[in-house]
Amino acid sequence: MLTYDINHRGNQSIYEYLYQSIRRDILEGKLQQGEKLPSKRSLASHLNVGVITVANAYEQLLTEGYIRSVERKGYFVENLSRYNRKKAAAETDYPPEPPEREFFADFKANRIGLRHFPAATWNRFMREALSLHNDTLWKTIPYNGLYELRLAISDYLLQNRGMKVSPSQIIIGAGTEYLYSRLMQMFGRACTFGIEDPGYKKFAAISASFGNPWKYIPIDESGLMIDLLEDSGADVVHVSPANHFPTGTVMPITRRLELFEWVNRVRKRYIIEDDYDSEFRYSGKFILPMFAEDTQNKVIYMNTFSKSMVPSLRISYMILPPDLLQRYIDTMSFYSCTVSSFEQYALARFISEGHFERHINRMKLYYRGQRSIILNEIAKSPLMKIASVRERNAGTHFLLSVRTRLSEEEVRRAGLAADLSLSMYSDYSYSDVSGGDICTLVINYAGIEQEKIPEVVRRLAGIFPECSGSVL
Amino acid sequence: MLTYDINHRGNQSIYEYLYQSIRRDILEGKLQQGEKLPSKRSLASHLNVGVITVANAYEQLLTEGYIRSVERKGYFVENLSRYNRKKAAAETDYPPEPPEREFFADFKANRIGLRHFPAATWNRFMREALSLHNDTLWKTIPYNGLYELRLAISDYLLQNRGMKVSPSQIIIGAGTEYLYSRLMQMFGRACTFGIEDPGYKKFAAISASFGNPWKYIPIDESGLMIDLLEDSGADVVHVSPANHFPTGTVMPITRRLELFEWVNRVRKRYIIEDDYDSEFRYSGKFILPMFAEDTQNKVIYMNTFSKSMVPSLRISYMILPPDLLQRYIDTMSFYSCTVSSFEQYALARFISEGHFERHINRMKLYYRGQRSIILNEIAKSPLMKIASVRERNAGTHFLLSVRTRLSEEEVRRAGLAADLSLSMYSDYSYSDVSGGDICTLVINYAGIEQEKIPEVVRRLAGIFPECSGSVL
Repeated sequence: MLTYDINHRGNQSIYEYLYQSIRRDILEGKLQQGEKLPSKRSLASHLNVGVITVANAYEQLLTEGYIRSVERKGYFVENLSRYNRKKAAAETDYPPEPPEREFFADFKANRIGLRHFPAATWNRFMREALSLHNDTLWKTIPYNGLYELRLAISDYLLQNRGMKVSPSQIIIGAGTEYLYSRLMQMFGRACTFGIEDPGYKKFAAISASFGNPWKYIPIDESGLMIDLLEDSGADVVHVSPANHFPTGTVMPITRRLELFEWVNRVRKRYIIEDDYDSEFRYSGKFILPMFAEDTQNKVIYMNTFSKSMVPSLRISYMILPPDLLQRYIDTMSFYSCTVSSFEQYALARFISEGHFERHINRMKLYYRGQRSIILNEIAKSPLMKIASVRERNAGTHFLLSVRTRLSEEEVRRAGLAADLSLSMYSDYSYSDVSGGDICTLVINYAGIEQEKIPEVVRRLAGIFPECSGSVL
Repeated sequence: MLTYDINHRGNQSIYEYLYQSIRRDILEGKLQQGEKLPSKRSLASHLNVGVITVANAYEQLLTEGYIRSVERKGYFVENLSRYNRKKAAAETDYPPEPPEREFFADFKANRIGLRHFPAATWNRFMREALSLHNDTLWKTIPYNGLYELRLAISDYLLQNRGMKVSPSQIIIGAGTEYLYSRLMQMFGRACTFGIEDPGYKKFAAISASFGNPWKYIPIDESGLMIDLLEDSGADVVHVSPANHFPTGTVMPITRRLELFEWVNRVRKRYIIEDDYDSEFRYSGKFILPMFAEDTQNKVIYMNTFSKSMVPSLRISYMILPPDLLQRYIDTMSFYSCTVSSFEQYALARFISEGHFERHINRMKLYYRGQRSIILNEIAKSPLMKIASVRERNAGTHFLLSVRTRLSEEEVRRAGLAADLSLSMYSDYSYSDVSGGDICTLVINYAGIEQEKIPEVVRRLAGIFPECSGSVL
């Protein structure tokens, strides 16, 4: 008769202990194939436990297939000869978590800081979403996102961007990378992508991960070079005409017209317009997106709230022209929407109640302040003897070109030693842009705390031997 | 001299009106290529507006490239001969929003209803997340998700599922479909997927959208048929051993051992274990996942909170064995995490404070109640004369096989006429399962309101002519 010391079961329940013990005996071969288990009643009385307890343990073993029940005969051990008693333990060496180094200043970081997020307002709408007696928030979300959010975006774009967009054209997704992924699947592997060089190199990584070919297209001072685009054989081109990253170039109307000519020439050509930080212009009005000037349904428009709100909020959207929308519905709409409906609802309310516009205006004021403080500090620093600034009154970064005998690698390493994480123009370039003795830094100031700026600039200057010796 | 009637500008600002007017005149050819614009001062005095206003309008036209500035000479209209003045208006016919029909009862819907979501507790943690003076929530999230959430999941799995998992092995994503997508990209197009038939057919749609080949593998009463899997040439197989959908089969240990033998035989083979509703078992303890019994690092484990919490929360996770994790890091970790850090934080707290376990226990009680009410109603109804129930004490659905002369299509249509959205066993089957005069329904009762159940069953019975005439 099976004998287990019920008193040695630790904090397991009797049922659990019994189940585990019999299971182990079967796996270890102490109970062999075909062996009959004692009846529930006799095992219960033998172990001095309840019949129900034994019945539950047998039931679990039966469900998992360790034993089988033969009517009127009882329970028998299954054939587990396939079980290999001498298995190696599973490997338990995992790649370590990528170390999270906190820098004194991080020019790569994409963060705006909790001080600037309207948490109380946001929380009010989140609470509202959770308390709504409205079934739509609790069931599966439409593939393209909550109607309320798409409506709020379409109203916002009409009021603030001169774009006439139907809510049905808008597709909500958890980040632009997600939306790019679905687009690439839709276009298929025969499609070659054109990518600005320098530019948004991640687009190339995404293409590669889908097995799509891509070509880098050089830019000049007006942006993408259309003759080289034509030569490249690209079918779909990714551009940021309102604010090229990282140069800040605004594509002028003449170049846009050339780009429209390119795209209208061949049926399968399309433009993906990435308008990711068009909200942040510090002079004049916004730049009209190409989407608004497109008359041939050739422009896919992309934007994100991760940049304008807070990076940890993963909400982006794209706007498709009608024929592509139909293709998307046919091939991709079986994928569920990736954004929680509660956050979609909160964002819809945040936009339609005017908080988004106010938030953008506050952030513009803040970034403009950041920019002038950091530019002032640079102007006062010995850096100015060897550096020049290129900035276009927009975005949250500018270029700083430094004349130095240090290599880029040396600059980067000296930066790390000064606890600065530097971002280089060459990081966004495919072709070699190392111009002799010029090292160009991308100064993304969005995440640099204001009170640190003087010290950050002092450390920046300290990197370059050409600055030392000079008196501030 | 340019003349615009400033009084007819509607609610535009003077600056905006001036910019739009000059822009239109350039595009329409009233101002021609090379034409010199009046000086800011003279235009301002001519129109009786401020010089700054004119300067701002010129600046915007300059930024967008409609005019160019020649030092000491003034502003000149750019060459816009490429602009085609006779463009067709962009098409504005969009596919209509998919109609959202509300049924009296929807057996397809995946909703648990707001009455059962612990909204107050959830909201408390969301508020906490938003008020945290902790920078990690405000910057870019690690590719694999917030550490706090991965830690909470790994603790939960150890306590409640007998799984030893390092937080570093866990990858958080916005839904299992998202995680499957990344897995497919990682495995690449040379990889053939095996899919249970019947089973989770969406996996086939996802494979198709990635251009991956897939094979349906028939199941028998113990689940996936391993000899047919071997013959199929599949490399990676998707299974739900703890609760096969829609049959509810638990894969017995013997079949699991055969499946392990299959996967261990060839290096590139893997098992994707989808444990999507393993929480909902109404008798006995949970079924040990194959992941916990895997000693060769061959099992990828998948689970989701959309099923156990609420569908509108898009949080799922997968657990990778060490070598696949390294491969994932190498090829896919450049993709940003798709879940908002606020919701990740709230879920981490919800789990680690024990609310998740309590919620699951409450939901089990609720679902068990639902199930017994609906089974009782069926037992009392004339349906029982022609129907049999197949259910396994788990999940939120059961199979109801009805002997009827109606075709499946006729049953479905009669269902719609009775305002019922029916779900059929054949919806989840690739091979033809129409068994003569048997029509098998999948009765997913998760979203059926309790008070409606008697009427729902009455309407169900009313579909079948075989039931009519009988007295209740």
